[in-house]
Amino acid sequence: MSDRTSPEKIEQWNFFELVLRAHIGANPFLDVDFSARFSHQDRTITAEGFYDADDVFRVRFCPNALGRWSYETISNSHELHGKTGEFECVAPEEGNHGPVAVVDTFHFAHADGTPYYPFGTTCYAWIHQGEALEEQTLETLRDGPFNKLRMCVFPKHYEYNSNEPEYYPFQRADSGEWDFTCFDPQFFRHLEQRVAQLMELGVEADIILFHPYDRWGFAQMDADSDDRYLRYVIARLSAYRNVWWSLANEYDLMEEKALADWDRFFRIVQECDPYQHPRSIHNCRSFYDHTKPQVTHASIQDSHLERVGEWRESFGKPIVVDECCYEGNIKEQWGSISARELTHRFWAGIAAGGYVGHGETYRHPDDVLWWSKGGVLRGESPARIAFLREIVEAGPPRGLEPVELGPYTAGASKGDEYYLVYFGLYQPVERPITLPEGGEYRVEIIDTWEMTITPLEGTFSGAFRTALPGKPYMGLRMQKV
Amino acid sequence: MSDRTSPEKIEQWNFFELVLRAHIGANPFLDVDFSARFSHQDRTITAEGFYDADDVFRVRFCPNALGRWSYETISNSHELHGKTGEFECVAPEEGNHGPVAVVDTFHFAHADGTPYYPFGTTCYAWIHQGEALEEQTLETLRDGPFNKLRMCVFPKHYEYNSNEPEYYPFQRADSGEWDFTCFDPQFFRHLEQRVAQLMELGVEADIILFHPYDRWGFAQMDADSDDRYLRYVIARLSAYRNVWWSLANEYDLMEEKALADWDRFFRIVQECDPYQHPRSIHNCRSFYDHTKPQVTHASIQDSHLERVGEWRESFGKPIVVDECCYEGNIKEQWGSISARELTHRFWAGIAAGGYVGHGETYRHPDDVLWWSKGGVLRGESPARIAFLREIVEAGPPRGLEPVELGPYTAGASKGDEYYLVYFGLYQPVERPITLPEGGEYRVEIIDTWEMTITPLEGTFSGAFRTALPGKPYMGLRMQKV
Repeated sequence: MSDRTSPEKIEQWNFFELVLRAHIGANPFLDVDFSARFSHQDRTITAEGFYDADDVFRVRFCPNALGRWSYETISNSHELHGKTGEFECVAPEEGNHGPVAVVDTFHFAHADGTPYYPFGTTCYAWIHQGEALEEQTLETLRDGPFNKLRMCVFPKHYEYNSNEPEYYPFQRADSGEWDFTCFDPQFFRHLEQRVAQLMELGVEADIILFHPYDRWGFAQMDADSDDRYLRYVIARLSAYRNVWWSLANEYDLMEEKALADWDRFFRIVQECDPYQHPRSIHNCRSFYDHTKPQVTHASIQDSHLERVGEWRESFGKPIVVDECCYEGNIKEQWGSISARELTHRFWAGIAAGGYVGHGETYRHPDDVLWWSKGGVLRGESPARIAFLREIVEAGPPRGLEPVELGPYTAGASKGDEYYLVYFGLYQPVERPITLPEGGEYRVEIIDTWEMTITPLEGTFSGAFRTALPGKPYMGLRMQKV
Repeated sequence: MSDRTSPEKIEQWNFFELVLRAHIGANPFLDVDFSARFSHQDRTITAEGFYDADDVFRVRFCPNALGRWSYETISNSHELHGKTGEFECVAPEEGNHGPVAVVDTFHFAHADGTPYYPFGTTCYAWIHQGEALEEQTLETLRDGPFNKLRMCVFPKHYEYNSNEPEYYPFQRADSGEWDFTCFDPQFFRHLEQRVAQLMELGVEADIILFHPYDRWGFAQMDADSDDRYLRYVIARLSAYRNVWWSLANEYDLMEEKALADWDRFFRIVQECDPYQHPRSIHNCRSFYDHTKPQVTHASIQDSHLERVGEWRESFGKPIVVDECCYEGNIKEQWGSISARELTHRFWAGIAAGGYVGHGETYRHPDDVLWWSKGGVLRGESPARIAFLREIVEAGPPRGLEPVELGPYTAGASKGDEYYLVYFGLYQPVERPITLPEGGEYRVEIIDTWEMTITPLEGTFSGAFRTALPGKPYMGLRMQKV
């Protein structure tokens, strides 16, 4: 976090930050409106600013076009109003593909057109674990297959999660009560540091704005505090290109909130985020109505991956099954499926044209479970997910569309170039396959657990039978020559 | 098959057979009504007789009470009318527990009160495979865990089933067409021999009266022929104590039959079978309405064993999931699940208070697949099913009722004496369990795949935590001391 305005040259999809100083006698979080209009040729984008600390106000902006940008601030404080300036947006460096958005109804891509296939994992409270563990989590992510991380803003109170966080999002009043009108900049600088580190690793931060697992009162704030908190988080974070907004984890367990509150939160995020980062909301028992226009993709907790096709039909949006039980061995059902079963669910979901999320919950003497605190991965599914990710990334650039290929789930390219069939639990020693007439296809047998790809000799066309190894969890990749 | 009336002493639940001779000029299958009234003290039971061959008529009767029985025949042929006689019904020998019927709404027992837990398997067309293979099937059943066999009367035409049978149920007319008014006694004697052999092995014969897999026309007979065939089969077979009636396999694939036909067939079976053997009908896609009074138990094809509880509620009858996919490796989904998966489905169904059926479909160079032709078993599930059967038979005498014991399916005794919990796919290293206060329970960990039962030290009561091995497919047995 710099005390100075950004230098004159800004890489596209990094952010420019304007730093201004003003001494506000009253509560600067509450009493100051501060934003800036950023202009380039005929486009103008308004970004909300925010009060940080020590009389410092900031406004951040992520430019989406190369060339000269100018800005002008707007504020009800004359010290912050009418400041102008310029900067140059230059070409992005390697590895910076810009923010992710929905493409082709059911898929995602970065702003530069690079396809983005979410292979997410979950470390809900990882930013509340202290330096050593948080750095270890980043190291693990660096080496792992995951390119999205579900993470909460607020600390977490739940089984296996009883430690106090180092930082809190609010300051305390003299009474010792939280003052929801005063944010704690330390907290947010720490959060931003972690989001920035994920960005460097190429990991999208799927930021969970509310969740029910709370002992501090952050799940029971009044509406004004909720809304102010949302605007503040958005003002601070939306310029980070790797941000996604998850309105809640298990929104339907937050008894204090009504559906109208969630609708309002969506509206606030939609209005205040100039970049329209992906927005969704995660359920426990009942899905939110993902057909609503403010929802960009369906974030789903459900173990029935065979229903991905049905959800695609229902919602007409990308299906991200963020939680389908976790690999682990804790006493809870949701945290005790095998690596084999989780790998199976990934394949089933992806061959059906959806995306699936990972989590790991192996019991630990100090309650360091990856799913919540991060640390290291102990399971056997991440290697298989890496293998699957490689296959998907080598596949059609716009992701897989479900097709009927006999009784099995198959993901296919939009044309007839590519088919990825998954046989799941079934262990046939052969399968009749019918491919479009006229094309010649290379066929490979994929062992999703052993992570092998075995090409069949020759090429295939039309109707044929393919031998299979008679084991569960096999797949076929068929690509037009 | 004897040419002479049974001797004077008949074991209870074996059958008495009266043999009469009459020369009928016309078609004796069509033109002769023949039955007998069997009386013991104040009970009278009428059994239909049938024409066999060579001027021989038979009527069979399975006595359900010890002591002196008398009989008198009734016929429209004076040679067969008014014949009287007596026999003595004596105590059954060991292993003869009488026919099976529904008890306690959701379970079965033999007539002598011995509980009967169906652990069925499937050899649809085994009686059409010739002596050598049929004898081998019987040998396999003798050594196996199965006490019910789903088997068709008619031969079968289907993939892996192209061989002609040795016997046909009807005679051919001079034209070469089947004469549905003339049964072939050879066929039925052979069928009866196999049913009798199953009885000796303690295997219930779940006799499938119609099925769609046909190239001979037996699936497309007119209504009169259907009804005559039904009455004939019932007259010949109902006195065998191990008979169950399955109106059809995949009734909903028989396009020539309307729902009204199936209702009529049920009525005929109900009216003509004096012993009220278990009656059901097996579906492909849509269940028959198993709430109808003529249905004694639900025979179900479905892979969702987690729905057993729901079906119990819906139908209020025993749930027998006769087909939930078969262990095997053929190209069809229904015939290519692993032994592990089939064992899992058995445990899931039984812990939910239902019953589950087996079948095996490993590819064979000569198309000898157990599911249809019998022969030998090659799979790994039968040993696990034997293990499960031992556990169930050592459990509460009236079978298992589902109870909520945390998130897992548990079968329990009606009281609080016994709990069998199944963890399925989940692999927790511990589970909190709450048993009724006041009782002391022995607890054993069951590895359903490795077939081990490991007692925990000491006894348990109320709420406690039990360690578990952190592997899928585990169970717990808890029995009150």
